[in-house]
Amino acid sequence: MQPLRVGLIGLGTVGTGVSRILLDHADRVTRRAGRPIELTRVAVRSLDKPREIDLPASILTDDAAAVARDPDVDVVVELIGGLSPARELVLDALAAGKDVVTANKALLCEHGLELFRQAREFGRCIAFEAAVAGGVPIIEVLGQSLAANQVHTIEAILNGTSNFILTEMFTNDAAYDDVVRKAQELGYAEADPSMDVKGTDAAQKLGLLTLLAFGTQVGPEKFPVQGIDTIELADLKYADELGYAVKLLATVKLVDGKLEMHTQPTLIRHDRPLAQVDGPNNMVALTGDAVGTTWLSGYGAGQMPTASSVAANLIDVAIGRAQLTFPHLDLWIEHKALPIQPAEEIFRRYYLRLQVDDRPHVMADITDILGRHQISLASVIQHESPEYDEQAGTDGAPPVPLVIMTHRTREGRIQAALTELDQLDCLHQPRVCMPISD
Amino acid sequence: MQPLRVGLIGLGTVGTGVSRILLDHADRVTRRAGRPIELTRVAVRSLDKPREIDLPASILTDDAAAVARDPDVDVVVELIGGLSPARELVLDALAAGKDVVTANKALLCEHGLELFRQAREFGRCIAFEAAVAGGVPIIEVLGQSLAANQVHTIEAILNGTSNFILTEMFTNDAAYDDVVRKAQELGYAEADPSMDVKGTDAAQKLGLLTLLAFGTQVGPEKFPVQGIDTIELADLKYADELGYAVKLLATVKLVDGKLEMHTQPTLIRHDRPLAQVDGPNNMVALTGDAVGTTWLSGYGAGQMPTASSVAANLIDVAIGRAQLTFPHLDLWIEHKALPIQPAEEIFRRYYLRLQVDDRPHVMADITDILGRHQISLASVIQHESPEYDEQAGTDGAPPVPLVIMTHRTREGRIQAALTELDQLDCLHQPRVCMPISD
Repeated sequence: MQPLRVGLIGLGTVGTGVSRILLDHADRVTRRAGRPIELTRVAVRSLDKPREIDLPASILTDDAAAVARDPDVDVVVELIGGLSPARELVLDALAAGKDVVTANKALLCEHGLELFRQAREFGRCIAFEAAVAGGVPIIEVLGQSLAANQVHTIEAILNGTSNFILTEMFTNDAAYDDVVRKAQELGYAEADPSMDVKGTDAAQKLGLLTLLAFGTQVGPEKFPVQGIDTIELADLKYADELGYAVKLLATVKLVDGKLEMHTQPTLIRHDRPLAQVDGPNNMVALTGDAVGTTWLSGYGAGQMPTASSVAANLIDVAIGRAQLTFPHLDLWIEHKALPIQPAEEIFRRYYLRLQVDDRPHVMADITDILGRHQISLASVIQHESPEYDEQAGTDGAPPVPLVIMTHRTREGRIQAALTELDQLDCLHQPRVCMPISD
Repeated sequence: MQPLRVGLIGLGTVGTGVSRILLDHADRVTRRAGRPIELTRVAVRSLDKPREIDLPASILTDDAAAVARDPDVDVVVELIGGLSPARELVLDALAAGKDVVTANKALLCEHGLELFRQAREFGRCIAFEAAVAGGVPIIEVLGQSLAANQVHTIEAILNGTSNFILTEMFTNDAAYDDVVRKAQELGYAEADPSMDVKGTDAAQKLGLLTLLAFGTQVGPEKFPVQGIDTIELADLKYADELGYAVKLLATVKLVDGKLEMHTQPTLIRHDRPLAQVDGPNNMVALTGDAVGTTWLSGYGAGQMPTASSVAANLIDVAIGRAQLTFPHLDLWIEHKALPIQPAEEIFRRYYLRLQVDDRPHVMADITDILGRHQISLASVIQHESPEYDEQAGTDGAPPVPLVIMTHRTREGRIQAALTELDQLDCLHQPRVCMPISD
């Protein structure tokens, strides 16, 4: 049978993994795809750089645009990441009549609607299993296995780097900075880990899941995004004492016709599967109106897990399945793009850690402010400190932590209360506020 | 567009759920399938029986065979369960040129190869997502999302009834019989729960996953199958003390070119995801050579989760995706049907609970037997009992439990040792032996 001819753009970690699967397991891939899948052209940044994999010089080029338009290529695999020139290359490939496989969540989160429309216009497809949660087949499950459902809630741990850091801090009683260094040494974090630890990566992946589940394109600038870079070990320990784990949780929920969205360090009850995901793993919990809640988890990144998803998409294209699936995804119900719930209306419980002076009336001042903002307390922890000495006052004594769990309230009320609390002389930094997912 | 015309055979719990999705969410289903999916004929056991769902009398019949051959039907959904007449109906439907969707794991485990060959011969497809783990999309993930992998290990909790019973016994310190009654009241267990609690249901599902992952048809008579019906609360508690949960675990592993298979109550370390699956849920852990381990979990049964999978298959058929996927599944690599590893060669750790007399030399007698069978002890628990009285001996004193965890050994050695142990006067019933999954 006619082989499927692949033009690979980007021979980094994942590109090398994809090449390995296609070369080392050609028999298996051919059997499952019904025809051979051949690496026909491979664009690399520099032809001189040493490579982990041995490819014939004749298929290598440093001209990515030429691969995108190569008449001998049936499907372009874009693995260079970033917005530009990835966007132009994908548009070119589609215009040249090629299907596209990509792992680029930033590109799809930002320009997904444009690229998907272009694909539809040219009668091509874009497959992107590897763009979210690496080897975990969340795109296929959402678009296909749960197609009979209206999914109404997705809660997910989508950034393995952040999850690894939180796990290590808690397990080893370690400070954030030390663990980031360890994560970098182990290859779990980039030299500049900002995209991961500031929540952007997870928020972009959430945007892509939202587009797929709700036909609505939402960038990370449209909803609350916080990273784990300000998390302190103390909060992980207090959360644990209260029965919760802290995870960087990406959430989208359909609430009264609006999308509630946020990506934030969040307290999750210990007995929930999401709280039990440790190390560099990802988990997606999907709730649909028929299926109830389904959990998927596994490696969210890494060479071979991500390559496994890219190769599955290539098999889909070779069989012709991707071409059938793509037009039926909920990607273009533009008339029903859903409004995003304003952040201040988000309704949930909160964890607060306040560093306060250990003197009379502090508790009264704080609870007065919370009470006036209609925020009701569910629990309070103040561990015993050395006895208050009326004569000495608290001059020079360190502030003590006061940990408060609220009942459900609006984000707007919490923010207003925090602004007022921050005016109190008795309150010191850091002042921590994290949402709770029940 | 031409609707997909469905002939539904069986309007029980799941059939009613499928009808609900097709009728109540026709717009959504049409959008995702690219065309309407219509209930054209529905075969019921008795036309007079009151039904939960209101269907036009004109589409109802009590002649299932007529539905399987109806020229106005494009796809037959078989939801009556059991081997006969389900097998004949499916064969008839395929011969009449219809695709088939079924949730019948017993049928596919027993007659899968025959039915799949018949489908291929007639150029039709069989889709069976609902046959294993209800709403959890394990069939699609195994056949499609992980297609670039050689899956080499599947460990799964596939029987929600058994998992519910084990969870309830442990959580509520309850005896097996009491919990079975509760499960029956809640609808989690059948009036005759044998298929569930004796392990047959889980073993059949494992057989089907094995056919899909390894192209080898294996019935439950070919590998060790034990149920949870002899489990005592004491063993759940000892396991917990040792750091393990007990689950009915279905396992298939590719070991040195042979398939190691078993479905047994098994000790699983607390920190593993499989140990954390409680209540009527299912979980499948798949390990592939590229993806590493991926976990899927959710409701393994129930009306709407199972109907969600059946409806997803109908959407697959309507789009034409199921027809493309089916011929590329690893269902007919007959030349490489893999041998099953003989049970006695299975190599793993074991948990033993021996009820022994509390007198001198008992421990020596037992450890002598284990040692002569080359079984090495990893840990021993014998809780303190009232002091041994040399004058009184142990006449009339109750036996005390001795709990032993072994290092890895062969099943054959354990069985030989148990046979010899059972000869000891100092050993009493029950004598419990469960494998450990590390």
